[in-house]
Amino acid sequence: VTEVLRILVNGIETQQVSALDRGLHYGDGVFRSLRVEQGRPCDWSRQVRRLYEDAARIGLTTPDVNTLTAQAETLCSGHSTAVLKLILTRGPGARGYGSFHEAPCSVLLLYPMPEFADIQRQDGIQARICETRLSLNARLAGVKHLNRLEQVLARNEWDDAHIKEGLMLDTDDHLIEGVSSNLFLVRDGELLTPDLSLCGVAGVTREMILEAAPAYTKAVQISILSLTDINRADECFVCNSVMGIRPITQLGDRRWSIGPVTRTLQRHFEKS
Amino acid sequence: VTEVLRILVNGIETQQVSALDRGLHYGDGVFRSLRVEQGRPCDWSRQVRRLYEDAARIGLTTPDVNTLTAQAETLCSGHSTAVLKLILTRGPGARGYGSFHEAPCSVLLLYPMPEFADIQRQDGIQARICETRLSLNARLAGVKHLNRLEQVLARNEWDDAHIKEGLMLDTDDHLIEGVSSNLFLVRDGELLTPDLSLCGVAGVTREMILEAAPAYTKAVQISILSLTDINRADECFVCNSVMGIRPITQLGDRRWSIGPVTRTLQRHFEKS
Repeated sequence: VTEVLRILVNGIETQQVSALDRGLHYGDGVFRSLRVEQGRPCDWSRQVRRLYEDAARIGLTTPDVNTLTAQAETLCSGHSTAVLKLILTRGPGARGYGSFHEAPCSVLLLYPMPEFADIQRQDGIQARICETRLSLNARLAGVKHLNRLEQVLARNEWDDAHIKEGLMLDTDDHLIEGVSSNLFLVRDGELLTPDLSLCGVAGVTREMILEAAPAYTKAVQISILSLTDINRADECFVCNSVMGIRPITQLGDRRWSIGPVTRTLQRHFEKS
Repeated sequence: VTEVLRILVNGIETQQVSALDRGLHYGDGVFRSLRVEQGRPCDWSRQVRRLYEDAARIGLTTPDVNTLTAQAETLCSGHSTAVLKLILTRGPGARGYGSFHEAPCSVLLLYPMPEFADIQRQDGIQARICETRLSLNARLAGVKHLNRLEQVLARNEWDDAHIKEGLMLDTDDHLIEGVSSNLFLVRDGELLTPDLSLCGVAGVTREMILEAAPAYTKAVQISILSLTDINRADECFVCNSVMGIRPITQLGDRRWSIGPVTRTLQRHFEKS
């Protein structure tokens, strides 16, 4: 089961965390997963900025950034390709929801890179629509926090290995994201991605695509989208910081060939 | 900080859990907190039944009930009064939301009983309305799961020690529950408690009150309630399995004296 390579908890090599950690008791923390290449975490400064912004959203004290950076560099060193997961929690606490004496905890985990990521980027993937819905709460929307039961239930809906991602709707029937990715559509040369102001996780790759896309597309829009929009789309793809941009080539009966905007954006990130 | 008395993880006395535990990574688990009296967990069979029902709601494999019971008895033995927290998680996992090789984990924690519980039951408490809202999702509603960031944010809204509980509304302005309790109102001799079919935690004490109340009240109703309803109520109280029934005597400018239905229900549970 445990295909982890190495773990640092507050900078110390160990396999364990406190049984009193508020991450365990309440999901009281935030995280990021990112790609490691040639022994270094990719887009590190942006990943840490976003991690710390999310921490601020839930009032979490963050560790010194230089300390965290040094720990990440130590962990990744010597690994030509891998996945780094950063977790920050509010640390061990007394019983009860209030956090009055917190000692934040960092958990850095290094995992092997998933197989077949290259093939999925090249050939595209089959996706499905999940029944599990995302709930709406502006207070937590966009934050990559540790309350992820909706994603767990959604992912456990299928075990067909041909299906590589599930798309999730919110409780108002809006199309929001993949279980572990953000979603983009292309229609008439315009790039569209769901609005995440009421739910969803605002990923780093999503942010980078939104910044890069104006050079390649007629317009970029953050929109309220539905299943109708994806069926009408000319291209669609999902993205995250580990797997990159993966074209969706099949969703139920609907099939797509991989389009020019998707390929252009993939090339942009291969070069950068 | 750590005022815990003893911890058993999968039956073994330890202070730690796996850093790969899905409880930490995703809040992928369920829990119950209950009172220990004279060395024994109170309402044990009901607490375990509800814990296992919640586990089933999220597809969690449960440990053998006799094993869990023996562990709880060992932990509580010799403690005249205490609080027992039971956590079941999906255990350590590989990276990713899917759980295909789970080895469930039980964490039993024994804490000292909070001070002043008796005084709060006797004299009542001051409460407030929280700004943090509960999101709506029928799929998880009622389940006492480990995704509790909304409660953490709500509890961290105040540090006035005179305020003992915060009441939470859902994103549709319905009054749902306390941060760590269920809510009941009395109006014209009828007992009312919020409907939890779209959000909230269905506590064991709430269930026991709903069963006992018909003997003492004109009617018992599970209702959609708002702030108007609490302001119009003749009595109101919160309840949970640790603190019992605590009358609310003040909420903002609104004050209540402790009413006959509240006192009658308190006496019912003192006797049983």
